[in-house]
Amino acid sequence: MSFDPTTLSYNDAGLIPVIAQADGSGEVLMMAWMNLEAVQKTIETRKVTYWSRSRQSFWIKGETSGHVQELVDLRMDCDKDCLLAIVNQVGAACHTNRRSCFYTSISEGSEVELMSPMK
Amino acid sequence: MSFDPTTLSYNDAGLIPVIAQADGSGEVLMMAWMNLEAVQKTIETRKVTYWSRSRQSFWIKGETSGHVQELVDLRMDCDKDCLLAIVNQVGAACHTNRRSCFYTSISEGSEVELMSPMK
Repeated sequence: MSFDPTTLSYNDAGLIPVIAQADGSGEVLMMAWMNLEAVQKTIETRKVTYWSRSRQSFWIKGETSGHVQELVDLRMDCDKDCLLAIVNQVGAACHTNRRSCFYTSISEGSEVELMSPMK
Repeated sequence: MSFDPTTLSYNDAGLIPVIAQADGSGEVLMMAWMNLEAVQKTIETRKVTYWSRSRQSFWIKGETSGHVQELVDLRMDCDKDCLLAIVNQVGAACHTNRRSCFYTSISEGSEVELMSPMK
């Protein structure tokens, strides 16, 4: 069945959330947003391309930092309102230079840092 | 440092996206939403509790199906606007009875089903 990116469910701002997961390790790296065109660009170029809500522009992940995300697989969920990008992450996914943005545990009532910035 | 759930960044509807990941396998199971009180309930009860946008009510995952998510760890991202719940998932996370909601690959221009419903 041919995939039509216009059939995804975008929110009122025209965006869909995207979870980036490292191929192999399965580490969840970050969550960001795509619009229709970003989904198309990601599939065409195999470079994960988000829509930056703060800058209101396309955000080819790693274009300035070199920390690109090469697309391995793109998956949609059962409701077609969330995407999962399986990626080869070069270097750090997080702007703090940590491998993942999810480096703080909060489940015990205090904030515990789980990982340090990469060297 | 003590964790205060009111310091998380909720959207205009008072919600924050939550990624559920299986402890051990690292499989990304689903994405859903929590409000402040759902975050508090999840931490207190160790049963992952979402906010159902369609029903406008708390949704203790698995309460009717038995497919509960026991909280192993809850993490926030660098921007405090997304959560990652590491869980022990009993049975299927998806309402289609598949282990994960992300069972459809779309990255090659066609829809490819990657997993079948659980028996």
